[in-house]
Amino acid sequence: MFKKYLLAPGPTPVPSEALLAMAMPMIHHRAPDFIPVLDAAKNGLKRLFQTQNDVLILCSTGTGGMVASVNNFFNKNDKVLVIDGGKFGERWSKICKAYGLDVKEIKVNWGYSIKPESVEELLKKEGNIKGVFVQATETSTGVNHDIEALGKIVAKYDDTILIVDAISALVAHNIRTDDWGIDIMVGGSQKGLMLPPGLSFVSVSEKAWKKAETSKLEHFYFNLKAERKKLKENQTNFTSAVSLIIGLNEVIKMLEKEGLANVFARHARLAHATREGVKAIGLNMFAKELPSNSVTAIEAPQGVDGQKIYKVLRENYGVTAAGGQDHVKGKIFRIAHLGYADRFDVIIAISALEMTLKTLAYPVNLGAGVAACEQVLL
Amino acid sequence: MFKKYLLAPGPTPVPSEALLAMAMPMIHHRAPDFIPVLDAAKNGLKRLFQTQNDVLILCSTGTGGMVASVNNFFNKNDKVLVIDGGKFGERWSKICKAYGLDVKEIKVNWGYSIKPESVEELLKKEGNIKGVFVQATETSTGVNHDIEALGKIVAKYDDTILIVDAISALVAHNIRTDDWGIDIMVGGSQKGLMLPPGLSFVSVSEKAWKKAETSKLEHFYFNLKAERKKLKENQTNFTSAVSLIIGLNEVIKMLEKEGLANVFARHARLAHATREGVKAIGLNMFAKELPSNSVTAIEAPQGVDGQKIYKVLRENYGVTAAGGQDHVKGKIFRIAHLGYADRFDVIIAISALEMTLKTLAYPVNLGAGVAACEQVLL
Repeated sequence: MFKKYLLAPGPTPVPSEALLAMAMPMIHHRAPDFIPVLDAAKNGLKRLFQTQNDVLILCSTGTGGMVASVNNFFNKNDKVLVIDGGKFGERWSKICKAYGLDVKEIKVNWGYSIKPESVEELLKKEGNIKGVFVQATETSTGVNHDIEALGKIVAKYDDTILIVDAISALVAHNIRTDDWGIDIMVGGSQKGLMLPPGLSFVSVSEKAWKKAETSKLEHFYFNLKAERKKLKENQTNFTSAVSLIIGLNEVIKMLEKEGLANVFARHARLAHATREGVKAIGLNMFAKELPSNSVTAIEAPQGVDGQKIYKVLRENYGVTAAGGQDHVKGKIFRIAHLGYADRFDVIIAISALEMTLKTLAYPVNLGAGVAACEQVLL
Repeated sequence: MFKKYLLAPGPTPVPSEALLAMAMPMIHHRAPDFIPVLDAAKNGLKRLFQTQNDVLILCSTGTGGMVASVNNFFNKNDKVLVIDGGKFGERWSKICKAYGLDVKEIKVNWGYSIKPESVEELLKKEGNIKGVFVQATETSTGVNHDIEALGKIVAKYDDTILIVDAISALVAHNIRTDDWGIDIMVGGSQKGLMLPPGLSFVSVSEKAWKKAETSKLEHFYFNLKAERKKLKENQTNFTSAVSLIIGLNEVIKMLEKEGLANVFARHARLAHATREGVKAIGLNMFAKELPSNSVTAIEAPQGVDGQKIYKVLRENYGVTAAGGQDHVKGKIFRIAHLGYADRFDVIIAISALEMTLKTLAYPVNLGAGVAACEQVLL
């Protein structure tokens, strides 16, 4: 008996309720059976996104949603600002450059959060920035950016929209799309929403739709105007990913039964417990500011390879966490507490980490981390 | 008790073996558990595609695979030929035009098949056609195009590639990718492969890869060169649609247990039985040439609305077939015999059609269509 535990920042475990719903017989995406399914999904997504805007449903990974947020709203040579504090900030830059946008970057050291005033300064200095791209949670570092503060700044500019990658932050954090002035927000199925990969979600404000009117970038597959039109008829532009959307309705039901406020609080509590456990073990957090509720990035201790920790966690203890990416590969490892996660997932993570360090001959007080966790979780 | 029967040309019914496999606990797409899964899937796809070429796996609908076949291999103003004999031929044109290609079209009347010699003539006349786009089965009309003949013609041109949308033909027809000289072939999950929508597959020949070297069209999400590189490591470029790929391995197992030759023969037999049943009822086939083994398009009889037949089939008899699209809406309806289909699916379809026509007060000899079906299926 060797049980497996998926504690990576996506895909995350899928609850049986969703798995079983998705195992029901296939229905046709243009037949009337599917109308109420998509109707429920689109309305549920609006509640999760805390928005009155349309939330469009795309058959793609989260990156597809990011691409759609670029190629529907801008034109070649449009000047945009990308806040790049990790692997996914970098992805915004790559996508914008692939479409010929004129990208200004604010590089944020990995492990740190953007200083909103630096964005304000740059917007003032440059004058004609058309869009500000940012992550709510930067998955590669476990750091959040202050979206509320950025929303206030961007709202001052009539021709500038705020585009937020909330793929790994959605439902782990209370992100108030409309109240905070988020023009475009991207989500994905395989993170807090506890589904298999295959769907991305994009909410679009009226301010952003106005920009879409003049956008001439190629967007045949990710055509949000066409999606918006079809969504009014409870359809998607191309074939709907029927099963995943059926699963989506199940997880929306589960999240709303728990209550969104409780869902946010649970993620905050699990993240807090994880950090306390890690500290009690004697390790350092990689996030120096605004740690995420979705994923905790931990520095590998002196002399221990972070990838080795990832490997022993998985091979000896059945825990699939995540390693570090790019220049922090080997230097950090990451444990998620995202989606279908409760207190004992954190206990498992911290216990497995204690045993892993012991296995790697690193001095550790067995049980110290777990005790600190329990203190928080009690 | 009101059982439902999905007899539409995609999505098609998903066998329990695949549904249950996809309901297994989630695994991580970058962890070693997934390596053998993707390895099996990519090798199985090669066998289904009858190719030694890479078959790339994309998280998208079939249309995404079609887009990838355009924006990875061509450049703006490249002259290409689209064979347009229906809704999906038209889609090739729309995609090519969206990317700025110079599109020459051969329009084929709906219900008819391309005359290969007309392609030969046009290639000669134009001189510098870079690609020929065609459907193996045009789903909107139930007509096939002669891919083998087109392959022989295109092979004579060193700088011209043949791009085949086999989304609804794959495994319903014996399509010999390599032997016939198909440079790019697109498949989808929700047709003959009996899976939910969400995956597309693209095979690419060396001749096509050569063209990819000089292609400068935007393709951030559908980047086949990046997919090829990742596939060698048994990964996909972005997050893998883990569940669907697990399901894919199940259906590949099922298809190979049956034997590909038997799978093709079964589709041919079911299509033949459907046509004989329809004729015995006294209705006419919409396909005047090369009828598809995947889907049969049937003309609504004089004075009966085809959409009404679709509606009564579904509402009174629980059979979800398909109506007609665009200018043949109301004039035809379509019955699929694709994927997870056996003889009694055809019997159900023909029996439901007999009862539907009776319900609509159209004169019909009850049982005559079914008898003709049985003659074929015996």
